Amino acid sequence: MTVSSCKFVLVNGSGFAVVLICVLLAFSALPAYAQDAKFNSDNSLTRPEGYRDWMYVGTPLTPNDLNNGEAPFPEFHNVYINPDAWRVYQRTGRFPDGTVLVKELVSVGAKEASSGAGYFMGEFVGLEAAVKDSKRFPNEPGYWAYFSFGHSYPLAESTQAQAVENCSSCHQVQAAQDFVFTQYYPIIRAAESAGKSGGGRMRPLESR
Amino acid sequence: MTVSSCKFVLVNGSGFAVVLICVLLAFSALPAYAQDAKFNSDNSLTRPEGYRDWMYVGTPLTPNDLNNGEAPFPEFHNVYINPDAWRVYQRTGRFPDGTVLVKELVSVGAKEASSGAGYFMGEFVGLEAAVKDSKRFPNEPGYWAYFSFGHSYPLAESTQAQAVENCSSCHQVQAAQDFVFTQYYPIIRAAESAGKSGGGRMRPLESR
Repeated sequence: MTVSSCKFVLVNGSGFAVVLICVLLAFSALPAYAQDAKFNSDNSLTRPEGYRDWMYVGTPLTPNDLNNGEAPFPEFHNVYINPDAWRVYQRTGRFPDGTVLVKELVSVGAKEASSGAGYFMGEFVGLEAAVKDSKRFPNEPGYWAYFSFGHSYPLAESTQAQAVENCSSCHQVQAAQDFVFTQYYPIIRAAESAGKSGGGRMRPLESR
Repeated sequence: MTVSSCKFVLVNGSGFAVVLICVLLAFSALPAYAQDAKFNSDNSLTRPEGYRDWMYVGTPLTPNDLNNGEAPFPEFHNVYINPDAWRVYQRTGRFPDGTVLVKELVSVGAKEASSGAGYFMGEFVGLEAAVKDSKRFPNEPGYWAYFSFGHSYPLAESTQAQAVENCSSCHQVQAAQDFVFTQYYPIIRAAESAGKSGGGRMRPLESR
């Protein structure tokens, strides 16, 4: 629905008409939500936007100081899933075609705070994504393709899928469910359990 | 808006009328979203629900192994802000009355993964919240009250505000903006910058 505003006559059950001014701001915004993967004609993926508003999944941390000064993925990995796929996952416990997982890399900014010693986020440094699409990537293992927009700013505007040996081969062997490291994501595990029992504590995304 | 469905006659600019059937499912869902703090008659705060669907803010980490085996807040701290407050923050760069920040504590589940050495989430272990409300807490510093539902499951169903010396005094002195540790939350800083410049890369929550 792209109508941003309208005037309409409400016809109620008694047949009376009431003129209303209706500004459908919420509706007009919905279709513009670019939550899915956007591909170019050369099959490269455009860098996702708006992902910080997606469903948060979890934050693995591989600090440089524990990886000989150069972690493969520095350092915090904030992971998000697109809402459309999340709705399906909550219902089925499975990642559907069209699932997009975004991994935003964030540097360690501090190692000591008033709450104790540890690791505290600094600045955004990188962005990666995984897309499951059986039609677009019929030959990728599990239909998952992996993309990196860089580990330093400025990020690439678009990028081609990584070779299988760079990402997929590890996800295939090490990840707990369908190439996704759900063993490190209690939020996903809770939703998966809730889906199996037909209920659970997590609220559906529709009611956001 | 609580209208869940309606029939209306659309009057367009040319004067033609078009009958539409309009099922306002998205609209009807909005008011049911219990995103704000719920207080009981004794001023205790009911344990928030649905917060994992709120806006994700950041994840400080204070692992037990870096805090003599007993971190004050074990261990990952997943922080969320309620959407109503986030919308205001994006526009103004300020936390409004009614801001709720939830801190979900998650244990360290692993320290080594295929992505490297580090810290990986295990299980949910605790929940805390901060609420800014000048009318309900006129005597709390900055109008912020702090609540802990426990650091092990089962969590408390409701809880009274903590004494100032337990939480507020530290937030007041150490936090970068209005009792909130925005120095560790690049997501908030990015939104604050965007608000100042009247734009920015983050999409407003309305378009979720």
